[in-house]
Amino acid sequence: MTTPVSFDFNRRVLLSTLALLPALIGSLRPKSAVAQTDILQSWNEGPTKTSITDFVERVTTQGGPDFVPAEQRIAAFDNDGTLWCEQPMYVQLAFVLDRVKAMAPLHPEWKDKQPFKAVLEGDLKTLAESGERGMLELVLVTHAGMTTDEFAKIVSDWLATARQPRFKRPYTELVYQPMLELLGYLRANGFKTFIVSGGGIEFMRPWTERIYGVPPEQVVGSSIKTRFEMRDGRPTLFRLPEVNFIDDKGGKPVGINEHVGRRAIAAFGNSDGDLEMLQWATLSGGVRLGLIVHHTDAEREYAYDRQSHFGKLDTALDAAALNKWTVVDMKSDWKRVFAFE
Amino acid sequence: MTTPVSFDFNRRVLLSTLALLPALIGSLRPKSAVAQTDILQSWNEGPTKTSITDFVERVTTQGGPDFVPAEQRIAAFDNDGTLWCEQPMYVQLAFVLDRVKAMAPLHPEWKDKQPFKAVLEGDLKTLAESGERGMLELVLVTHAGMTTDEFAKIVSDWLATARQPRFKRPYTELVYQPMLELLGYLRANGFKTFIVSGGGIEFMRPWTERIYGVPPEQVVGSSIKTRFEMRDGRPTLFRLPEVNFIDDKGGKPVGINEHVGRRAIAAFGNSDGDLEMLQWATLSGGVRLGLIVHHTDAEREYAYDRQSHFGKLDTALDAAALNKWTVVDMKSDWKRVFAFE
Repeated sequence: MTTPVSFDFNRRVLLSTLALLPALIGSLRPKSAVAQTDILQSWNEGPTKTSITDFVERVTTQGGPDFVPAEQRIAAFDNDGTLWCEQPMYVQLAFVLDRVKAMAPLHPEWKDKQPFKAVLEGDLKTLAESGERGMLELVLVTHAGMTTDEFAKIVSDWLATARQPRFKRPYTELVYQPMLELLGYLRANGFKTFIVSGGGIEFMRPWTERIYGVPPEQVVGSSIKTRFEMRDGRPTLFRLPEVNFIDDKGGKPVGINEHVGRRAIAAFGNSDGDLEMLQWATLSGGVRLGLIVHHTDAEREYAYDRQSHFGKLDTALDAAALNKWTVVDMKSDWKRVFAFE
Repeated sequence: MTTPVSFDFNRRVLLSTLALLPALIGSLRPKSAVAQTDILQSWNEGPTKTSITDFVERVTTQGGPDFVPAEQRIAAFDNDGTLWCEQPMYVQLAFVLDRVKAMAPLHPEWKDKQPFKAVLEGDLKTLAESGERGMLELVLVTHAGMTTDEFAKIVSDWLATARQPRFKRPYTELVYQPMLELLGYLRANGFKTFIVSGGGIEFMRPWTERIYGVPPEQVVGSSIKTRFEMRDGRPTLFRLPEVNFIDDKGGKPVGINEHVGRRAIAAFGNSDGDLEMLQWATLSGGVRLGLIVHHTDAEREYAYDRQSHFGKLDTALDAAALNKWTVVDMKSDWKRVFAFE
């Protein structure tokens, strides 16, 4: 059944904004904000949901032994596979492939040059064989060579028309409804929610505020270098074909520290790339929350973990057991996965 | 006269926090927040103050031709010489010199090795001759080789005891009272205030929230690289002797974009190092505010500009005339410079 999704989205943003007010005004009262668990309506009752609400209640209970002042309530969310669907390929990879095709008429030489040839011929096997070096070349050629404003427009235009192949919907509709509720629930309890993704920071910023309620200044990601230039009397930032920062694995705590300047007290991921972020947030004393989204639902979404060749969840799953992180069983813990269900 | 400064500071932070509430609640009303110009009580009436309040009234008037939505109201402040005193030397340079002295017992070889020898002998002339390379060596040796938490403590401990040589007060009292009011005034009108400094990001973050009401996640600055490490089962970020980013000149717009992801619509500086940030914020269409603090008051503070060998204000002063940026004449525009006056 098709539901009026855009209306739902707007309503959600409005609700989460309004939900902030009591929390702010609440900070003037002697007692802390009350946990508004009814926001989490797409979560089934059980130990997973309880681990979240228990954590929030403990760190927001003023005078309690685990109280954390609001300004230190930093929550870090991975994006691909944690907030939105990363199958059958990273959304940003789909963007890269489409951009190569769109740019091909200006580059006739690509017809005979790898890894471009493989992209143009839809030969994903040869593309995969080009390895990290080939991928980097594709990323740089599609992400650099324009101003930051121009790139933001390219991303927005692409997202408006691109469709996820299985669900035939815009990628921005393939965000996990329970995680949207979790973002709102944390914000209603005084948390500042950050996205900390291996994906490109400038690839995410044009839409994270509209879709997640996360403003650009709360998005951390991988980046290429930019250079300030006056062009026709107008100041611009020009995107250069040079890697600046890779926000993955050990880079995630580095990126959080660089952007936030505080240790996160809650971290949410779904792969080994999130391991260090989860460790950094949870293993430094105090009641902390680490959470892993485990993709167990081939019917409503996808099922994959240790064997997956990308976004692999292996070491982090072992670490979850060791460190008592919450593991979300998508199939049993989520009443619904997507808003359109 | 000595006034109870710490009480003043706490009161100011509280007031600026409370001042936020009407602005937030105001966003639910059809009309925009009213400019609360009485906050700017250390500013003399005149064209300088009017240029600020006019700008704020125009961008906050909902339905007006110059209205800017609250989430886009980004204000970027340089720190040294714009928010606090940078004479007789950058505060961070005083920190470096003191740290070299404190670390010297563990480095007996420094007695015979430049530029350390010059520092230990108080020979600033030889130190200056060691140039950028010598300064970098001093910065890296005093800023790297410890965890981020350890460095934050070193900075806080130093600031608690160090005194500015002329005023014999903690550096954190040598912040400009009119600029504190300006920060609060902008925040009360829905702005998010960022510090964008050539100084070290981790040197500023331990105290900017207490002194300026600017949380760590709204501080942009120069940085060295860090590396994630598990140490005795505890996750840490270890500071490496390698430059990561220089947040000066053309780097300032780059830094703002990296951290904020939006163009600032108001920028505040005092030297040529702020030129590109001022251009980037003000020359891209719409009513914008560029402001330069001109140090003209040798009696209450210091007087310097084009001839100064550091923090030089030359090109940016010419650009101010050309681009109609506000130039604050410290002597005539500010009723008082410091809170302790």
